Amino acid sequence: MEFSSKLLENAVNEMSQLPGIGKRTALRLVLHLLKQPQEQTGKLAAALTKMRENINFCANCHNISDTALCEICANPKRDGQLVCVVEDIRDVMAIENTSQFRGHYHVLGGKISPMDGIGPGDLAITSLVEKVKTGNISELIFALSSTMEGDTTNFYIYKQIEPFNITTTTIARGISVGDELEYADEVTLGRSILHRIPFETSLKSL
Amino acid sequence: MEFSSKLLENAVNEMSQLPGIGKRTALRLVLHLLKQPQEQTGKLAAALTKMRENINFCANCHNISDTALCEICANPKRDGQLVCVVEDIRDVMAIENTSQFRGHYHVLGGKISPMDGIGPGDLAITSLVEKVKTGNISELIFALSSTMEGDTTNFYIYKQIEPFNITTTTIARGISVGDELEYADEVTLGRSILHRIPFETSLKSL
Repeated sequence: MEFSSKLLENAVNEMSQLPGIGKRTALRLVLHLLKQPQEQTGKLAAALTKMRENINFCANCHNISDTALCEICANPKRDGQLVCVVEDIRDVMAIENTSQFRGHYHVLGGKISPMDGIGPGDLAITSLVEKVKTGNISELIFALSSTMEGDTTNFYIYKQIEPFNITTTTIARGISVGDELEYADEVTLGRSILHRIPFETSLKSL
Repeated sequence: MEFSSKLLENAVNEMSQLPGIGKRTALRLVLHLLKQPQEQTGKLAAALTKMRENINFCANCHNISDTALCEICANPKRDGQLVCVVEDIRDVMAIENTSQFRGHYHVLGGKISPMDGIGPGDLAITSLVEKVKTGNISELIFALSSTMEGDTTNFYIYKQIEPFNITTTTIARGISVGDELEYADEVTLGRSILHRIPFETSLKSL
């Protein structure tokens, strides 16, 4: 792609560094900014810089937070003995949206993935094991994605905390609510039959 | 979507102002920036701000340019009598990529579209008519998209320049090179038969 302006080229190149944004999309976005008032670009640039420079992570759960402890960890009404292990802060947001969980989180910051060069040392696993060691946690809920990497990470953590004898659970896998059985994949359908629950229990969540 | 941080929320909100970027995509992009070194965000923000503040448009054709006249208009080898009218600078880039055009461009900055509140006054039509009035232009090539808006814009400009008696042409519409006839839409196929060209002419472009 040949540009008639270095400034434009530079902006497009930087924009296309973002994941899923190719050169063409970057050009479209940049030309959009050119059509908008100058303040909009200024506000976008300021918001990004300010966020990147001042962002803070919760000292307890590694969730993004503007304060030392995030709102969840600082909330006395929430049960700190129950810890849900998630991959990233989007998962925290997703689970919070359900309003079904009143415990704390622990954000790992990724999954063990040797293919991408991510080992256990790159994730917040040590701090999780330390937390378990204190004896203040009664249950650890694994809520990682059910991929090879997610399973590996679950197992790695499980092995580390096994000696401390706490309850470990994993979120239920099964057919999505509202889905037709005939279109479900075999593995999911198989698991949902294997891990069936008493009908009375299911009535409670209606 | 509830955010645990105002800084994050602000960055996501600004990012999601961009066309085609929803809140979820914006969050993904912003979290990506958080995982990258701080310089990357700084460079992106600086590139955008610098571009928006210092961008310049060619005084002759309204193409984006770092100099008063763009490279195309400043090039003495190019034929200023031949002017190709396009919608935006992406079209200039697309035509330049073909290396088949040695004239000048005129970037309108959009199409007449009452539905979007874009009238002739919002486009660079007056400057085009002025250019035609000088008598230095021999042919005007319409290369707008063949939509209702594009056709309206073509016709509006045509009516304005009609008194000056210059040649006006429009780019050929037809079946794409390499396409199968059976899958072509009827309108395009119909036009390509109606506007057929001598076989000898087609041989020259091989």
